[in-house]
Amino acid sequence: MWEIAEEFRALIVFAEHRYYGVSMPYGDRSFDDVGRVGYLTSQQALADYVDLITYLRHNGSYSNRVLYQIGDTYDTGVGGTSVPSVTNPVIAFGGSYGGMLAAWFRIKYPAIIEGAIASSAPIWQFTGMTPCNAFYRVTSSVYTDTSAECGLTILASWKAIDNVTKTVNGKAWLSHKWNLCSPLTNDNDVSTLKDWVSELYVNLAMINYPYPANFLTPLPGNPVKEVCKPMKNHKEDDFTLLGSVFKGLSIYFNYTGTSKCLDILSSSAPTLGEKGWNYQSCTEIVMPMCSNGIKDIFEKKPWDIEENARYCFENFGVQPSIYAIEKTYGGKNLNAASNIIFSNGLLDPWSSGGVLQDISKTVVAVVIPESAHHLDLRASNAMDPESVIKARKFYKNTIKNWIFNYQKHPTRSSNNLFVKQQIVLTI
Amino acid sequence: MWEIAEEFRALIVFAEHRYYGVSMPYGDRSFDDVGRVGYLTSQQALADYVDLITYLRHNGSYSNRVLYQIGDTYDTGVGGTSVPSVTNPVIAFGGSYGGMLAAWFRIKYPAIIEGAIASSAPIWQFTGMTPCNAFYRVTSSVYTDTSAECGLTILASWKAIDNVTKTVNGKAWLSHKWNLCSPLTNDNDVSTLKDWVSELYVNLAMINYPYPANFLTPLPGNPVKEVCKPMKNHKEDDFTLLGSVFKGLSIYFNYTGTSKCLDILSSSAPTLGEKGWNYQSCTEIVMPMCSNGIKDIFEKKPWDIEENARYCFENFGVQPSIYAIEKTYGGKNLNAASNIIFSNGLLDPWSSGGVLQDISKTVVAVVIPESAHHLDLRASNAMDPESVIKARKFYKNTIKNWIFNYQKHPTRSSNNLFVKQQIVLTI
Repeated sequence: MWEIAEEFRALIVFAEHRYYGVSMPYGDRSFDDVGRVGYLTSQQALADYVDLITYLRHNGSYSNRVLYQIGDTYDTGVGGTSVPSVTNPVIAFGGSYGGMLAAWFRIKYPAIIEGAIASSAPIWQFTGMTPCNAFYRVTSSVYTDTSAECGLTILASWKAIDNVTKTVNGKAWLSHKWNLCSPLTNDNDVSTLKDWVSELYVNLAMINYPYPANFLTPLPGNPVKEVCKPMKNHKEDDFTLLGSVFKGLSIYFNYTGTSKCLDILSSSAPTLGEKGWNYQSCTEIVMPMCSNGIKDIFEKKPWDIEENARYCFENFGVQPSIYAIEKTYGGKNLNAASNIIFSNGLLDPWSSGGVLQDISKTVVAVVIPESAHHLDLRASNAMDPESVIKARKFYKNTIKNWIFNYQKHPTRSSNNLFVKQQIVLTI
Repeated sequence: MWEIAEEFRALIVFAEHRYYGVSMPYGDRSFDDVGRVGYLTSQQALADYVDLITYLRHNGSYSNRVLYQIGDTYDTGVGGTSVPSVTNPVIAFGGSYGGMLAAWFRIKYPAIIEGAIASSAPIWQFTGMTPCNAFYRVTSSVYTDTSAECGLTILASWKAIDNVTKTVNGKAWLSHKWNLCSPLTNDNDVSTLKDWVSELYVNLAMINYPYPANFLTPLPGNPVKEVCKPMKNHKEDDFTLLGSVFKGLSIYFNYTGTSKCLDILSSSAPTLGEKGWNYQSCTEIVMPMCSNGIKDIFEKKPWDIEENARYCFENFGVQPSIYAIEKTYGGKNLNAASNIIFSNGLLDPWSSGGVLQDISKTVVAVVIPESAHHLDLRASNAMDPESVIKARKFYKNTIKNWIFNYQKHPTRSSNNLFVKQQIVLTI
């Protein structure tokens, strides 16, 4: 976005999702009860964006000042002195959940935005649309494709952890060997450890970028390759195997060498608005996930909607609505949608729930074999694979077409009083 | 609908809008406070229809029984023993507000319904999209086109009422002459009387059907013509003029001869869910109306949003959101919509806010010069003008195309276990 904004004379606006960051409708009490947190839905978030864009379009004509009111995101180098008017086209960009929002935004409000770039948006990762094991199968393939031995080591490690932690001494050994902040004392702790490690493998696959980056945590380039390097012991004894797994994992949680210990009680990606996301996962964003250790390298874990519902009721007093997203946004029937690019990297676990084939002439899929989670939306980098570079060129040309079609349409005739400027909404 | 359902093997479902009829979410307390009535919005109503259709599609496959659970509207003569399955297309029909809902339904949920017949749907009768005097101009033209003298008589009648009711004797005279249930005692009563009469003229124009009908009230065919017959005295003295106006009005409020007196405190169309509509007019369905007595035959009355807001706050504790509908449903930018027919009769005051020109190849306007308010959705009648008959044929062919395109699409492959049946949703 930053790289094409100037050419498009575009204002870039980052719209913070309600109940995330500092956008708390009830301040510190925003999550206190259903009466307050109940306004946290994707539909409400989209309606916020409608209000924001309408405000910018109408008020932007009179003063540049308003551009600053939405935060620190207005770059004065972009667009210069021009201001948006009511006739300005808007393009939404988003990655991950933001990508889902971008696509849903265009689906629901095609009069407000002219098109959406939805990167790594798993809009089909919902009940009845994607097998629950797809996500872990893709994750697994990232590891086995990097090194078959690495995949086998991970697969063997779950049983090794169980074996070793059967005894008190074994628990102490693993707690010390893996430098855990709180030592393992019971089976529940062991289970927590395994969940933490699983999540870490998933995150690593997501951010398996070709160059050093700091998205969820600081990491070297091609981190899965780095993590896999020491992990080639699947035939060794459990202790040797777990020692090498720890060496691999350290790349993730302690690349910078500043972690004192491994804290399995904290999320492996703590900055992404955990509370809001947990609530949304308990209401509309219910994504079935399962693994079986046969077609993937994870432990067998069925999708348990009952347990899920219990957790949601206990924590938020709500029940999951497993068909809410399909009913609201159309599920697999997107025939009537238009002007959306769905991009997916095949190294990204979330590609399992993404749109990988064109729906129509204007709802198209871009598959980027060498990309992890929304690499295409990151800044250009000398290490970028050719497929990402090509994808970005395609986005740019498509956006040009969207704007051209918008501007030639009589319902949005140009207002010559104001210099044209596009708005790019990133969500 | 009834006439084409059998050929389409269609199930006809009448979906009652929440907060109307017997669909009261909180029973008798549904309008008690904003916490209860707040769930009365067009968006919530559309979401209800999504649930209803999803339910019918999925559960209808197993048992015919469910078809009866939605009320008494299932006609066993239509569709016979076949049951709907998940692959069945759905077409929404609606007139007036129901027409707006039908159009908005397709705009917002094109994965749920395949198309919409939106008859006499004034989706543009909102702030910034239609001049506020358009509605009364169209209404006026119905009267002046029927008889120029009738229009002049109505225009003169407002001043005549004011003149006559200046005195106590005059108020008594008019109360007696017009057979009012409660006599006029002050200027406020006079104002109420004039409002009541204005509304009556509007209603008469809406239901100006070519044959006797009983939509808002029992009426003869071409009722405007009947009402206008005695009203040709615009140059006579005020008393004579008002006497003939009363003769005309009697056609409306006392066609059957059973009214004991004229009750200006009751609505002239009491059966249409007044309370729900009042609330919606105070939140999202805010339709600016004004008249000036120059380009129309009504008294000068500006559109007063301030007074409107005051009324809404006093009665419901809410403020009108004048741009809510435009922001939610796209306003005049319907370029991305598809599969909607907007039909309007030019005798219908509401055509002022309707879609009278094609938006695109699949969002088309049907203009029926000889039709009043959604005449096209009424049963066939020997007195129907040719234009209505042609319109209905066009709807039928268009629906055939919609269903054909739906069924050939791979995302909705046919389920051969069940006999195909369409669902027609009327709202």
